[in-house]
Amino acid sequence: MKICRFGNVGYELPAILVDNVRYDVSGFKQDYNERFFADDGITKLQEWFKANKSDCKIVDEKIRWAACIDHPSKIVCIGLNYADHAAESNMDIPKEPIIFFKSTSSIVGPNDDLIIPKNSIKTDWEVELAVVIGKKASYVEEADAMNYVAGYCLHNDYSERAFQLERGGQWGKGKSCDTFAPLGPWLITKDEIADINKLRLWLTVNEKMMQESNTKNLIFNIPFLVSYLSQFMTLLPSDIISTGTPHGVGLGLKPEPVYLKPGDIVELGIDYLGSSRQIAKEYVS
Amino acid sequence: MKICRFGNVGYELPAILVDNVRYDVSGFKQDYNERFFADDGITKLQEWFKANKSDCKIVDEKIRWAACIDHPSKIVCIGLNYADHAAESNMDIPKEPIIFFKSTSSIVGPNDDLIIPKNSIKTDWEVELAVVIGKKASYVEEADAMNYVAGYCLHNDYSERAFQLERGGQWGKGKSCDTFAPLGPWLITKDEIADINKLRLWLTVNEKMMQESNTKNLIFNIPFLVSYLSQFMTLLPSDIISTGTPHGVGLGLKPEPVYLKPGDIVELGIDYLGSSRQIAKEYVS
Repeated sequence: MKICRFGNVGYELPAILVDNVRYDVSGFKQDYNERFFADDGITKLQEWFKANKSDCKIVDEKIRWAACIDHPSKIVCIGLNYADHAAESNMDIPKEPIIFFKSTSSIVGPNDDLIIPKNSIKTDWEVELAVVIGKKASYVEEADAMNYVAGYCLHNDYSERAFQLERGGQWGKGKSCDTFAPLGPWLITKDEIADINKLRLWLTVNEKMMQESNTKNLIFNIPFLVSYLSQFMTLLPSDIISTGTPHGVGLGLKPEPVYLKPGDIVELGIDYLGSSRQIAKEYVS
Repeated sequence: MKICRFGNVGYELPAILVDNVRYDVSGFKQDYNERFFADDGITKLQEWFKANKSDCKIVDEKIRWAACIDHPSKIVCIGLNYADHAAESNMDIPKEPIIFFKSTSSIVGPNDDLIIPKNSIKTDWEVELAVVIGKKASYVEEADAMNYVAGYCLHNDYSERAFQLERGGQWGKGKSCDTFAPLGPWLITKDEIADINKLRLWLTVNEKMMQESNTKNLIFNIPFLVSYLSQFMTLLPSDIISTGTPHGVGLGLKPEPVYLKPGDIVELGIDYLGSSRQIAKEYVS
């Protein structure tokens, strides 16, 4: 199943995507939040939709795609989880996952504008596969970890490199600006993907291919990450783990780094997870 | 005004504290969350309470104190914000604030047990003054910053030093375990504190004084922090800024560090913000 959300900011409603058509499932009376996943919402929604599909309105194509998840409690990001990206960042391959948090206030719809923050000169892109947690996970064994996963979605982990690396200590400062986490277009449930470790991911800037890799190149794979993180914190239903980005970010380009400027168009995608598109805009107060 | 919450985990209700008595204000029909603060809840609740105090039940003293805030979107912590603590940690005084996030799943009531995480050998204490945001804050000037503050509460920023400092890169890994963020006993509104930069804060372990300082020793003060953070992310109503801890954590003790073990009793307090007490327990699955 593919689930998504639509509508204007603050008025988002849940939908199901079937053959590229969005069906309004607001009649199910439950947005895609912590309670939805905790309460086995995916199974219940599937059954409800079978019985009620003919009553579900089709969502007009022009209506905004919202982030596919409603208010997760946290976004945990994995740093340097592709060896080629660690190399281009002049950093060692980590012995164990590097993690950092991204403020959930940075979440936007997959095709919303990217607002380049005030005083930013190094806004960069990062295509990533995001895992959505389906069940409260604490001290989970790697062998059981996939039972705690609901599905996957596309994420562009936008990063301001000066804020992240030149403003003191920890990375979260450069990861949490508004519009820095376009999520979606949809969440695809895990049962629909035969091998999560064999998906192509890509990102273009102004139609030029910048990132192109495959999830087979992940240093730490998804079951390991879920289990690992659950040793340090409780993962809640709807929480997001963003699994890291491959080679090809602006920071690593030769002869010198390239960063986004107003008017640039960023497009990205992952097999089965769809594609998204953001236009960079200047901040206007 | 002092507001607090009470009741069993998952069934918390809002209260107002007057002369050390908790009045059940669940009749106001609004828990202390993002919507409450965004909707000028403090003023409305104050008026409602004036009119309805006689109908509010008194909460029995034996009933659990819950965290004084309901599901903030984030906890932003300030690292090394007291010069003496930077020195004991063998770290430089930061040129600008070091920030990191603490997962909100670590929030508990002020007197709940501290659960020492599985495989932890370096669980440490940190008394901190936490600021609670009252209004959505983005690119706020320092001179206006206090308009975005609702009030303050006591926070023990528990930290697992091995997870934080020896397990790769970023600090969040050692800050986000369950029970690592006792919040409260109450939130005190900002109007009730004449000078926030003149509060004594202290922490004892098994009745031995370990931390004792004053908020006058903060390197970066509260208006500066609110303004600074709002350049990097949007602060939402109910969000928490934990302003850093002074000298005297276990990590910095001589001749060698001391960490918590099951049975230890941690007590802490800040002028006007009350005190809290946690008993350290072993993790039991």
